[in-house]
Amino acid sequence: MDVAKILHMNGGIGDSSYAKNSLLQHKVILMTKSITDEAISALYNNIFPREIIRIADLGCSSGPNTFLTISELIKTIDNERKKKCHKSLEIHIFLNDLPSNDFNTIFRSLSTFYEEDLRKYDMGRDELFVAGVAGSFYTRLFPSNSLHIIHSSYSLHWLSQVPDGIENNKGNIYLTSTSPPNVVKGYYEQYERDFVTFLTYRSKELVKNGRMVLTMLGRKNKDRYSKGCSYEWELLAMTLKFFIAQGSIDEKKVDSFNIPLYNPSPKEVTYIVEKEGSFTIDILKTSKIHRNSCDGEKYNMVQSFRSVAEPLLVSHFGHDELNMDQVFHKYNEIFVNDCRAKEKIMFVNVSVSLYKRN
Amino acid sequence: MDVAKILHMNGGIGDSSYAKNSLLQHKVILMTKSITDEAISALYNNIFPREIIRIADLGCSSGPNTFLTISELIKTIDNERKKKCHKSLEIHIFLNDLPSNDFNTIFRSLSTFYEEDLRKYDMGRDELFVAGVAGSFYTRLFPSNSLHIIHSSYSLHWLSQVPDGIENNKGNIYLTSTSPPNVVKGYYEQYERDFVTFLTYRSKELVKNGRMVLTMLGRKNKDRYSKGCSYEWELLAMTLKFFIAQGSIDEKKVDSFNIPLYNPSPKEVTYIVEKEGSFTIDILKTSKIHRNSCDGEKYNMVQSFRSVAEPLLVSHFGHDELNMDQVFHKYNEIFVNDCRAKEKIMFVNVSVSLYKRN
Repeated sequence: MDVAKILHMNGGIGDSSYAKNSLLQHKVILMTKSITDEAISALYNNIFPREIIRIADLGCSSGPNTFLTISELIKTIDNERKKKCHKSLEIHIFLNDLPSNDFNTIFRSLSTFYEEDLRKYDMGRDELFVAGVAGSFYTRLFPSNSLHIIHSSYSLHWLSQVPDGIENNKGNIYLTSTSPPNVVKGYYEQYERDFVTFLTYRSKELVKNGRMVLTMLGRKNKDRYSKGCSYEWELLAMTLKFFIAQGSIDEKKVDSFNIPLYNPSPKEVTYIVEKEGSFTIDILKTSKIHRNSCDGEKYNMVQSFRSVAEPLLVSHFGHDELNMDQVFHKYNEIFVNDCRAKEKIMFVNVSVSLYKRN
Repeated sequence: MDVAKILHMNGGIGDSSYAKNSLLQHKVILMTKSITDEAISALYNNIFPREIIRIADLGCSSGPNTFLTISELIKTIDNERKKKCHKSLEIHIFLNDLPSNDFNTIFRSLSTFYEEDLRKYDMGRDELFVAGVAGSFYTRLFPSNSLHIIHSSYSLHWLSQVPDGIENNKGNIYLTSTSPPNVVKGYYEQYERDFVTFLTYRSKELVKNGRMVLTMLGRKNKDRYSKGCSYEWELLAMTLKFFIAQGSIDEKKVDSFNIPLYNPSPKEVTYIVEKEGSFTIDILKTSKIHRNSCDGEKYNMVQSFRSVAEPLLVSHFGHDELNMDQVFHKYNEIFVNDCRAKEKIMFVNVSVSLYKRN
């Protein structure tokens, strides 16, 4: 699986698009806002940007959250600037995601964003600039010493590839209670390699004292795997088993399907940041969000999961072999009848605010 | 007609896409390459960029020419750098077009481009960065003093809007021999306003001594309108008349259809640059290209015209009212039977190389 070519949330603005099913991620952005605010405030105290501030949002996806993130960042910068009585400065925002992300939809919504946000913060059209950058954040993306702030929410738990040597993760498509030890190890080691690569490249791209605020879908220190995430993928594994039993997909094909995802613990994040050595951790916070905390807000857990899982399924099984409407119809049926569906299953967010060492 | 929302070449990579029908523009980029080379050489002599060089290609469109342009620019920079025995520098390229341009297709071809070009010029993945910028070049697009080179080929003859007050251009959809004087004046005045806006914004975005190389589809000083362009749109006007006669479209709807395009003469370009005052012209050149100079090279003049005209037609008439396959089938029929089709109709290119005044 060439993750950089395949991984993306469902594009467009239809019912199963990520744009329409990202309420949970929306809540997380707002929950972790105080960390971003503190980081920007610290940046102001250390760098005093007077002319231009360059920001990258990595894994921006395509939908309302793309604009929520940058709008919140602009608001905070505007507040800091006013507190310090600096005159207005230019803000250059780089929206990054994989090349398979739907940048066209982002770009076509930009004019509305400009209109609304420039008015809100009393900025001119010559003070805010947005660019799109397509590429994996496990490669270099920006020139050296060019960025002041890097932000990433709900993206860094995606790996650059499915770990090698986990063929014996049979019946599972992600880490669960029944995954053999080598599979757990394989996933962790892939995450460590990827996160080190990420930190090394970002340290080249940030200016001295530049800041990063990263939020990942993680897990508690004591847990072997994320129960929230695991549950969603477990239901999908059960769904796929139904289609094997029905004879419409091949068991071997399902066995070779694993998700390039890892949910790190706060301890693992700290360990890797210290090992890599370019950054100092300022704040490390975990927060929890109920999987069904968005119930009753036009939120559909199955649709939300579909917007993330469908591109991976299509790439592995193909449209012809597996009808996605049928898959998620079955998924929904299993979910509704599952005794755990009514339990308050938690997602754990690990947020970390770091600055580049001198 | 909201040009900034509508104007784009046909996206994707299908038979009527711009990507498959841009051989003429390809030739023009290569024809005008010597001017770009001289500009980059002059830039090197004046600015000595040592760490980073930032380049914008305005109206990059989506297809092989997008990459041809930036590949040629990189080649020239690499040559200049070697001549001066500078060590390698980072190149940051900004690809700009209107938000309706197909940026997804560009971004999905980037990895191939990186692979090929980095190998060709012996550059590392940490030396070349590409970003996409969606927006009209009649607005601000980049931060102040941030660009070294601005390049634009075959885009600046597009206006920001259809000129006001040209309702009496009946039977025509562009400037032709039968357009009344106020229509000619209306088109010129719109061009002057737009080009002044363009120059003013770009002068803010370029560093001191920064360079622009612009190529427009223009006309000779002595001509009242571009015979090459005019001919293509005249054939389309004839085609639309056929559909009026057939009763499938309304005459009034056709009367209100005019193309937001202007083909300036070298004199007009010089006059406006001097009037605006931010730039000095270094080189001004006209060149000619036969409309059918691409014959026999898998080039289809009708398909090529369609890739440009179709989005404008769809936006004005709608898909339901006018079937595009039928329109261009008829267009082709008229073209093939037209006595002028065998004449060597010329396109005139006006190329200008300018630098920002101190």
